[in-house]
Amino acid sequence: MAKVKVHVFLKPGVLDVQGKAVEGALQGLGWSGVANARVGKLIEFDLDDAVADKEAEVKRMCDTLLANTVIESYRIEIA
Amino acid sequence: MAKVKVHVFLKPGVLDVQGKAVEGALQGLGWSGVANARVGKLIEFDLDDAVADKEAEVKRMCDTLLANTVIESYRIEIA
Repeated sequence: MAKVKVHVFLKPGVLDVQGKAVEGALQGLGWSGVANARVGKLIEFDLDDAVADKEAEVKRMCDTLLANTVIESYRIEIA
Repeated sequence: MAKVKVHVFLKPGVLDVQGKAVEGALQGLGWSGVANARVGKLIEFDLDDAVADKEAEVKRMCDTLLANTVIESYRIEIA
């Protein structure tokens, strides 16, 4: 059983409204040293060892379902 | 300028509906080897070097705003 982590985040040029909201809220609470906040998703799951070439399969999962590759990029960690 | 990453995820006992949806969708698409999917949030921001004791400050941010500590736990990485 392999532990898979997929980190999905908006591409740099895309406006991250959730990040802007977090940044504004933190600054409003007095943390003026906060900048460039971005909010992403982290998807974790177990993958059966019977799956051959896990990296390629997880990449296919990302392209098919987990990430909207028009505006999001992703990073895969398999442990 | 320190890079801060905060990973927020639901506590183990809490039903993760988004994770269940991802798991069901992946299995429905033919990836039957997927199990225990969980979806969390990853918040990244820059923190000014003028902030003393960054770890404690970020912990306060999490408890105040970034995580709902009743149902969520968090992990802080400062690089």
